[in-house]
Amino acid sequence: MARLTRNIPALALAFVVVLATIAGASAQSDPLPSWNAGTAKTAITDFVARVTAQGGPYFVPPAERVATIDNDGTLWCEHPFYTQLAFAFDRVKAMAPEHPEWKTEQPFKAVLENDQQALAEAGEKGLLQIIAVTHSGMTTEAFSKLVLDWLASARHPRFNRPYDSLVYQPMLELLAYLRANGFKTFIVSGGGIEFMRPWVEKTYGIPPEQVVGTYGEVKLETAPDGKPELEKLAKIEFIDDGPGKPVGIDRFIGRRPIFAFGNSDGDLQMLQWTTAGPGARFAGIVHHTDDVREYAYDRQAVFGKLDKALDAAAANGWTVVDMKQDWKEVFAPAIAAGAAKDTKQ
Amino acid sequence: MARLTRNIPALALAFVVVLATIAGASAQSDPLPSWNAGTAKTAITDFVARVTAQGGPYFVPPAERVATIDNDGTLWCEHPFYTQLAFAFDRVKAMAPEHPEWKTEQPFKAVLENDQQALAEAGEKGLLQIIAVTHSGMTTEAFSKLVLDWLASARHPRFNRPYDSLVYQPMLELLAYLRANGFKTFIVSGGGIEFMRPWVEKTYGIPPEQVVGTYGEVKLETAPDGKPELEKLAKIEFIDDGPGKPVGIDRFIGRRPIFAFGNSDGDLQMLQWTTAGPGARFAGIVHHTDDVREYAYDRQAVFGKLDKALDAAAANGWTVVDMKQDWKEVFAPAIAAGAAKDTKQ
Repeated sequence: MARLTRNIPALALAFVVVLATIAGASAQSDPLPSWNAGTAKTAITDFVARVTAQGGPYFVPPAERVATIDNDGTLWCEHPFYTQLAFAFDRVKAMAPEHPEWKTEQPFKAVLENDQQALAEAGEKGLLQIIAVTHSGMTTEAFSKLVLDWLASARHPRFNRPYDSLVYQPMLELLAYLRANGFKTFIVSGGGIEFMRPWVEKTYGIPPEQVVGTYGEVKLETAPDGKPELEKLAKIEFIDDGPGKPVGIDRFIGRRPIFAFGNSDGDLQMLQWTTAGPGARFAGIVHHTDDVREYAYDRQAVFGKLDKALDAAAANGWTVVDMKQDWKEVFAPAIAAGAAKDTKQ
Repeated sequence: MARLTRNIPALALAFVVVLATIAGASAQSDPLPSWNAGTAKTAITDFVARVTAQGGPYFVPPAERVATIDNDGTLWCEHPFYTQLAFAFDRVKAMAPEHPEWKTEQPFKAVLENDQQALAEAGEKGLLQIIAVTHSGMTTEAFSKLVLDWLASARHPRFNRPYDSLVYQPMLELLAYLRANGFKTFIVSGGGIEFMRPWVEKTYGIPPEQVVGTYGEVKLETAPDGKPELEKLAKIEFIDDGPGKPVGIDRFIGRRPIFAFGNSDGDLQMLQWTTAGPGARFAGIVHHTDDVREYAYDRQAVFGKLDKALDAAAANGWTVVDMKQDWKEVFAPAIAAGAAKDTKQ
């Protein structure tokens, strides 16, 4: 005993080392470290375990492990309004000198005067008009550069950080976790396909060919140097939102997803389409409940309204993520060099 | 010496074994065994070596190794007419009892009476009308099943083999070779996206989400059981041919290919678009020169006309594959169970 007691400090140290090792291994083995333990996290890991269990009743071959994830409000911040609109409004201001008529013409006048009321009155039709005009009249390559230049300089009005740094850390972990389990991850967004493609690979690890979104007309032209070029025209051809999402998924992917995540009524039909297939299916919704770290909104929101889809989630047992409760972290650590510190968080 | 001479048979055997081993290793290391040595084969392997040489001046990162390959006449046989038309004509005949008006209405009358002259007069417009009508009025899933059922029973009129067994062995090797070198292989075809997707994965190893093609309008509906379903409408929305190919590539892939293969004027703009980018680029054309093993056609062909693209190949130094000279084998060995023997080859 005496000998044993004398060795207590050594034993205690060994014990601590063992504990630390276990904790370390456990932390390493948690693929979703920014998710608090709870029903949402368990639903995700249970689903992935089920469809990847070889020989199990819910096994899905890797080629069919298609996951479709919304972008605005699901992968990155969509308030106070969609980032693509912030880009479009800045474009209107930059283009205004060549368009003196916009001083009196809606919805452009509203943008130039920061008139929120008039903008709201212009509605979706007005916003689409702004998108069409500001996203055309140049080649696809020039547009891609415009987007990257804008992202490098623009800052979110509340967080004072680059928009592409306001991506959700728990969702980045989810994307990586899905891919590690043989899923192919796709973005399926109401946003413009050409607005997302220039930066999603670096930000989300999703290549441009795995982005489904709204798109406008593009025409093959001949440049002055005789080379072919693709010109963006001021006409929106397809809106990948609401009932458009299953259509877009079918058109671009050609398989029904087994896993889908959204955050608004614009995702309702994608979630219904996903879960209506046979076998194990997962539908998830990010519910914005955290006005301290991010925003709190649902049924009354202008951008990212979550009303019917919230009812459908309750009725069908879909997974609803409570941002405040379920997420240990909201935003990814500032990755962009020189990113300003978050002033409100 | 006497002892050595006595051992000559043993030595000779050993020598033969060594030779056979070398030959075996060499055959194994040829990734394109069905291609005869020549400029076409060398152009392909040189290009791949160049863009995969780490640190070399033409190195392309794997994520940007996008290869776009035409289907009809490039991956599988397109004569006496496109396989999708054979499917559509059979559909017209199957649907005729519900459409008594087709007995007098062109272009359907021509199909029912096998009137080639009247069909030719109906032109592309008539063919598109036939495609629209025969490829709609059902869900996307029902259509996919129709295609697979048809492929299982239909036989090519000359070769008496299933159409999906009339795929080119050298091109299958090329697809596998590209993938082994980090390329992502896409089909970019004037054919219908939903006509190709059900079988391309099994046949070419290309997943449905890597198929770009012509597509029609699709609408989200609610089935009688309350589940969502996608209904195919009788309206063609986008034709992925000629100048449509760079547009389709941009829309679906969002990157400019570095490698493209086609066989007709419908591929001209894809080849121009591919080669107009910076760095190393590859453009290839399958020239059908073998009327014994397959078909011989180019400038005068109704299906797969190769005229302007042949001139462009000569002017720009693109690789033209002479089917007769460059291909040791044309068709892949009959893979479908119960496939009838080729009667003409």
